[in-house]
Amino acid sequence: MMKPHFKQVAIVGVGLIGGSLGMILRRQKLADSVVGIGRRVENLKTAVEVGAIDRYVSDPREGVEGADFVLLATPVDTYERHLREWADCLQPGAIVSDVGSVKGDLVTRSEALLPPSVRFVGAHPIAGKEKTGVAAGSETLFSGARCILTPTSKTDPEALQTVRVLWELAGSIVLDMDPFLHDKILGAVSHLPHVAAFALMTALADVRDHGLPELDLASHSGGGLRDTTRIAASSPEMWRDIFLWNRDNVVALIETYERHLGELKRLIAVGDAAGIEKQLDKAKHEREQLTPRAPGKS
Amino acid sequence: MMKPHFKQVAIVGVGLIGGSLGMILRRQKLADSVVGIGRRVENLKTAVEVGAIDRYVSDPREGVEGADFVLLATPVDTYERHLREWADCLQPGAIVSDVGSVKGDLVTRSEALLPPSVRFVGAHPIAGKEKTGVAAGSETLFSGARCILTPTSKTDPEALQTVRVLWELAGSIVLDMDPFLHDKILGAVSHLPHVAAFALMTALADVRDHGLPELDLASHSGGGLRDTTRIAASSPEMWRDIFLWNRDNVVALIETYERHLGELKRLIAVGDAAGIEKQLDKAKHEREQLTPRAPGKS
Repeated sequence: MMKPHFKQVAIVGVGLIGGSLGMILRRQKLADSVVGIGRRVENLKTAVEVGAIDRYVSDPREGVEGADFVLLATPVDTYERHLREWADCLQPGAIVSDVGSVKGDLVTRSEALLPPSVRFVGAHPIAGKEKTGVAAGSETLFSGARCILTPTSKTDPEALQTVRVLWELAGSIVLDMDPFLHDKILGAVSHLPHVAAFALMTALADVRDHGLPELDLASHSGGGLRDTTRIAASSPEMWRDIFLWNRDNVVALIETYERHLGELKRLIAVGDAAGIEKQLDKAKHEREQLTPRAPGKS
Repeated sequence: MMKPHFKQVAIVGVGLIGGSLGMILRRQKLADSVVGIGRRVENLKTAVEVGAIDRYVSDPREGVEGADFVLLATPVDTYERHLREWADCLQPGAIVSDVGSVKGDLVTRSEALLPPSVRFVGAHPIAGKEKTGVAAGSETLFSGARCILTPTSKTDPEALQTVRVLWELAGSIVLDMDPFLHDKILGAVSHLPHVAAFALMTALADVRDHGLPELDLASHSGGGLRDTTRIAASSPEMWRDIFLWNRDNVVALIETYERHLGELKRLIAVGDAAGIEKQLDKAKHEREQLTPRAPGKS
């Protein structure tokens, strides 16, 4: 594969994801210069110190003006504000890409906010996000992780290929997906489990606070509760935005979940042992399919 | 603490839990003889081979007759059948204990099925149960794990103390709890998370099978889904029985969960960003309390 080379990369939002890609761009010499754009100067100074960017600018318009590649790595709800602020400064042919966890409408809106001469490529690198901030950034953050690209009928094939190679150089396993299908699939495998975990955690606090003061969650919880609710400690701001940007899918998925929960409740309430076991067997079978095969095993 | 010493221990149901306690009893010389009782001779032969029992008998009445300590380690739904089969053979003063994951009614029923001269002590060792079977047994299975004893007004204090020391010698952290409170607390920290995970897994399969064939759960799932549903691979038979024996608590807990899920759904559906963030903040705060402090840190 041909290594892409950029004159100037502008990273808007130099956090864990944007900063890690900056480190990769710099280390692999994929850009003459990596410029950071952000609101918090302290953070941008840290980004320079850890090698995520070469320099930063206080005026975003100045940063994107000379860039042939702009990475949007801010919360998805801020895309519109950012694009309206500097889209008219972009040079013709520049590639704008992103790292947002939702696509669908967000891709459509982003395309619409850019001049026709600018090439947008939606991307969603699926990287561990337990830590945040550029100080936790790493050149290996994306190694072996999937990165979903979401081309549309408007996507320039050459720009798509450039972004694909960039993520491959970052170590990702890259796949293409329709942006609306992305939101349905991620809604199922990621957004719904987060809803389930958030609601489970608040429900248990509710049980404790209204009638069961002996319920010391920390001392009584075992591995099951800890695993099931681990993702309930995820960023409230980020997940608020994901739920809102994928609202229709998430609501429909919650409704399916509610049906299954209601059915299991009904079976337990009426004491239908065979019915319960059937649903649990089905769950166990499906869960066992999730376990990845060990490397080298068929 | 005084080490207990038994002439003969009878273990009814020599699986992972019963077998592991058998290994501990034998290794620490807490019994002259450990007798296994079960249906599958092959399993009992394995139990002898791995050192979980000294010998086995085919007639359970013969096995419990000479025992001063009987451990019920079978599925909770079979207690009544077992006790009816051999309770009248027990010698006066014998201690009968168990390892069931539900207590409450099960303890009441077990006490009622035993002769007044026999001393029942309900116990629930909370050990990892990913593996099953005596071949996976280990003398360290209970090390550092909690074991909840559930004395009632009928419990003999000396028998309670004997069972407590036995589990302490097994390495457990032993605590006492009212059997009905046990079921409320375990319902919250264990049974409800299992319901949530089982229902999430079948809901996702439903989404895939009815409208989203592209949803390849194995290839699209990340750590979030895997963690959240890990316990959905638990034994359907065991969990069927737990849900039924703790029916009222589990149904009430599911209803609380449904309320929280429904509220989050409503906030997403109406686009209440502040409301969503508030619920997610609460969940994150509660989840962070679960994480045990690192040793030595305040």
